[in-house]
Amino acid sequence: MYDILKNINGPQDMKKLEVGQLQQLADETRQALIHRISNVGGHKGPNLGIVETTVGLHYVFQSPKDKIVFDVSHQSYPHKILTGRKEAYMDAEHFGDVTGYTNPLESEHDLFTVGHTSTSISLALGLARARDLKKTDENIIAVIGDGSLSGGEALEALDYAGEYDKNLIIVVNDNDQSIAENHGGIYKSLKALRETNGTSENNIFKAFGLDYRYLEDGHDMTKLVGLFESVKDMDHPIVLHIHTIKGKGLAYAEANREAWHAGGPFHVEDGSPKGENRNPDTTVFDNLKELLDQNERAVVLNAGTPMGLGFVQGVREEYVKRGQFIDVGIAEENAVAMSSGIAKNGGTPVFGTFAPFFQRTYDQLSHDVALNNSPATMLVLAPGVYGMNSNTHIALCDIQMFAHIPNFVYFAPTTREEFEQMFHYATNQKDHPVGIRVLPSFAATGEKDDTDYAVLKNKVEKQGKEVALIAVGPLLPMAMKVAEEIEKTEGKEITVINPRFVSGIDEELLEDLISGHKAVITMEDGELLGGYGQNIASFYGDKDMKVINHGISRRFHTEFTPEQLLAEHGMSVEKLVAEVKNLL
Amino acid sequence: MYDILKNINGPQDMKKLEVGQLQQLADETRQALIHRISNVGGHKGPNLGIVETTVGLHYVFQSPKDKIVFDVSHQSYPHKILTGRKEAYMDAEHFGDVTGYTNPLESEHDLFTVGHTSTSISLALGLARARDLKKTDENIIAVIGDGSLSGGEALEALDYAGEYDKNLIIVVNDNDQSIAENHGGIYKSLKALRETNGTSENNIFKAFGLDYRYLEDGHDMTKLVGLFESVKDMDHPIVLHIHTIKGKGLAYAEANREAWHAGGPFHVEDGSPKGENRNPDTTVFDNLKELLDQNERAVVLNAGTPMGLGFVQGVREEYVKRGQFIDVGIAEENAVAMSSGIAKNGGTPVFGTFAPFFQRTYDQLSHDVALNNSPATMLVLAPGVYGMNSNTHIALCDIQMFAHIPNFVYFAPTTREEFEQMFHYATNQKDHPVGIRVLPSFAATGEKDDTDYAVLKNKVEKQGKEVALIAVGPLLPMAMKVAEEIEKTEGKEITVINPRFVSGIDEELLEDLISGHKAVITMEDGELLGGYGQNIASFYGDKDMKVINHGISRRFHTEFTPEQLLAEHGMSVEKLVAEVKNLL
Repeated sequence: MYDILKNINGPQDMKKLEVGQLQQLADETRQALIHRISNVGGHKGPNLGIVETTVGLHYVFQSPKDKIVFDVSHQSYPHKILTGRKEAYMDAEHFGDVTGYTNPLESEHDLFTVGHTSTSISLALGLARARDLKKTDENIIAVIGDGSLSGGEALEALDYAGEYDKNLIIVVNDNDQSIAENHGGIYKSLKALRETNGTSENNIFKAFGLDYRYLEDGHDMTKLVGLFESVKDMDHPIVLHIHTIKGKGLAYAEANREAWHAGGPFHVEDGSPKGENRNPDTTVFDNLKELLDQNERAVVLNAGTPMGLGFVQGVREEYVKRGQFIDVGIAEENAVAMSSGIAKNGGTPVFGTFAPFFQRTYDQLSHDVALNNSPATMLVLAPGVYGMNSNTHIALCDIQMFAHIPNFVYFAPTTREEFEQMFHYATNQKDHPVGIRVLPSFAATGEKDDTDYAVLKNKVEKQGKEVALIAVGPLLPMAMKVAEEIEKTEGKEITVINPRFVSGIDEELLEDLISGHKAVITMEDGELLGGYGQNIASFYGDKDMKVINHGISRRFHTEFTPEQLLAEHGMSVEKLVAEVKNLL
Repeated sequence: MYDILKNINGPQDMKKLEVGQLQQLADETRQALIHRISNVGGHKGPNLGIVETTVGLHYVFQSPKDKIVFDVSHQSYPHKILTGRKEAYMDAEHFGDVTGYTNPLESEHDLFTVGHTSTSISLALGLARARDLKKTDENIIAVIGDGSLSGGEALEALDYAGEYDKNLIIVVNDNDQSIAENHGGIYKSLKALRETNGTSENNIFKAFGLDYRYLEDGHDMTKLVGLFESVKDMDHPIVLHIHTIKGKGLAYAEANREAWHAGGPFHVEDGSPKGENRNPDTTVFDNLKELLDQNERAVVLNAGTPMGLGFVQGVREEYVKRGQFIDVGIAEENAVAMSSGIAKNGGTPVFGTFAPFFQRTYDQLSHDVALNNSPATMLVLAPGVYGMNSNTHIALCDIQMFAHIPNFVYFAPTTREEFEQMFHYATNQKDHPVGIRVLPSFAATGEKDDTDYAVLKNKVEKQGKEVALIAVGPLLPMAMKVAEEIEKTEGKEITVINPRFVSGIDEELLEDLISGHKAVITMEDGELLGGYGQNIASFYGDKDMKVINHGISRRFHTEFTPEQLLAEHGMSVEKLVAEVKNLL
């Protein structure tokens, strides 16, 4: 089954093969890939499409001396298979051996830990510059998908590469698809290039000053090897524009590229999912839809992840037609700055993306939006420990990033109803920008929240004495359980507070707590340093109140379960009950 | 002298003029501009070059109904002159009436407060989208200089504009110069377009999918008016590529474009400076130069502001030739990510820019550099209250932005010698990224600092009792004065601590303070919320120690003097002495 692959324990083993054997190696690599993704899920379409390109790269170049940087890592699985990690794909017992991202801890063939898009060309330019200073002669290769090209970091790097004058090979893996469809004018250029075998006039790469070659059949091993050999050791930067088919090898994936970008385990024979479909939380989508249907000046923006907001294929088209749903492509900076412009001209913009990708927009949030006090709403998806659990997608620092930005009000809802009321407030006011932390799922209480969020107040969920727990967002239920347990075992009622907003403190309430309480315990689902709880400690610094702050330590935590990570940082019902008892 | 301009109190007054009178209006506008900049300084070259373009825009379009967004604001002075603010240019008594940036508080013709580059196209796209939803018909115009085009936010927006399908006019003011010379491949395209009257094949704007027109003489009023009239109310986006001369009208400025980008007052007759030249602090330059001369694998990166690091014209060329000095153009994201690549391939990268511009690089610092633990050095120029004092360039949040990023060590030196030793440590270790806060000027003590900064410790500058002052970076001298004053008036010695690093706390030292001290006062030169002092408050939260945190309030403070802003937030010798006395 793996006649050739079984003997490939690294790129050096590929050098013995004839070019004529490479398609078989590609086929076996694809088989191993399908074995893994059909059993454990992962990124499917992009990896299926880049098998032949990867075989060609490792056949022609000499990794790890030659250095290959894979953008965003969503096309790095074949690379892992060919660089000594094939068991993690072929053998269920080894599925746990690899992460979904390039990882220097796994292999010397992985240069960087990468999970964000659009970084490969910059990183490769850095490798190349260091090579020049060292006076060595390795090839430096960046592999980037068409979807990632629209990100500012990639465009800045393409521009700089256009003035760089030494070896740099930029492989553009063009499968005519981002996560969803592509957006932006460069995709007109790419389309024209594909339709003219690379000869059309408006060539975005040449316009950036780069040399350029096109390959129409990115699954033809002989042509790929020829192309790579023709540019090996080249003395200047060149773009190799390679047309591939996303999902190549699985007909249903080729036919339905958005659904097959990534996902869970499936039956290989027909693509049907293994196990039942999760029902995603529709809180965000329901509220966005209602807003768009009721306010014709409202507009929802996203940056390459429309499904993150529930606007899947078949749903979003109507809103796109109305001009109320905009996908700017992977270009978060542009989306946030546009939101400011929309708000300033009387529209009601809502931009949403996942917390780690908001990292790209700090400057736009501060300068373009907050300085201008534009009433734009930012939905920060899946922040904190309940968000993504890979160090490549760290979500533990959203409060650190945003809470201190002047004018910006940052809400931390705990329930569906709170989210709804905060969202309603945010999209109906004209006073300032608002951010809302969106939990992966919201529990509904069934009781409407009618709070006026123009007044920034913490909420006392349970009034008690001696000790107060202040629990951010998703940690409120844990705090309530601690209070119940204390009542049960000690016969005492303690106070539980839901801060609701984390971009400042409710001084009045904190002042009131002093009478009747001797200690405050804060709990947050993100990093401790620079987080919310420290604001409380600072407020009480010279007052007669003990403060204990719980938050996550300053590390790139990875592959954790929320409960475990929280407990390691003092946040479990058991540990907190013990702590409270100690204080009583 | 101002025969026409004296009657222009807004664009509506220009409509009565004949096209033939516009050159005179432009000349008078330039005179007013020169009157101001020769007396109070400011941005010179960019504004001198855009006079005619601005006259043409306001003659043809109907501001404020039509909306013009000026990128970075460094080309907005003629716009201010023509929109009711001419006295601030013609009359010394009114020089104080305007800021150097577009400002909605000054005029309805200013849409946004803007001081960062590369934002105009995104903001304009937002204005345009809102117009579409409102179903109104105003023209939306972005005015952007060639230098700003290389920024990721501008490139993302150009890309999105290439798919947008309604009115949007992008005026590219091409004076063939950024602050320093341009860098990047797109400038090859622009040069070719200028040399072929806009007809060369590799057209970066067309490659982004945009319609395009070129004007060679951007100072010809008739042609400018014709060009603008030809695109007024156009139904799709178009780029107007206008070639202008930076510094137009002052021969010495035209001849020396980098030196005349911005600066202080000058004698109009020969350009000689009024008043004496300040001697800039050379600490950073001296250390960078020494590094580059001693370590051939070391490389200094900057993003469009080489003079910020002391690498002025005539000095940097040698290092550019050696490959050790890289200006990536205005492209901070690329510079930071490249630093990671350089470090990973054995180089020693140092990137430096001003604190507000580091805002662009949060994601690259976190994901590309810190996650990969790349030993790159980041010089954060002029952070805190002693940095720039405009809300467009807020520098009060550098600790908030960086201190919490895992793996990143952030130093806050107080003297030249400390900076030198920290820099030496940073550029000779391979363990993690390092950031250093660079004060606008460093006082030299004359005593070499031989601290081993691999060990992160606070420094006790003065050992005392009862009260400890912990003063970040430039506030240490104030803390020392407070201690002296207390000794003089109370006969008591208090403790003064220099934290030296602000990306965490020195738990051992803080623990030791408990015996012998009853209160700690923290002082920092940036925002309080999420800052350094709150870490201290959190540490002592459940211990027997009063903590008082001083820092700046969460606002876009502007046009302040450091001493005044600090005093307003409790940080003056007098206020602190009173506070300490109260605690003793």
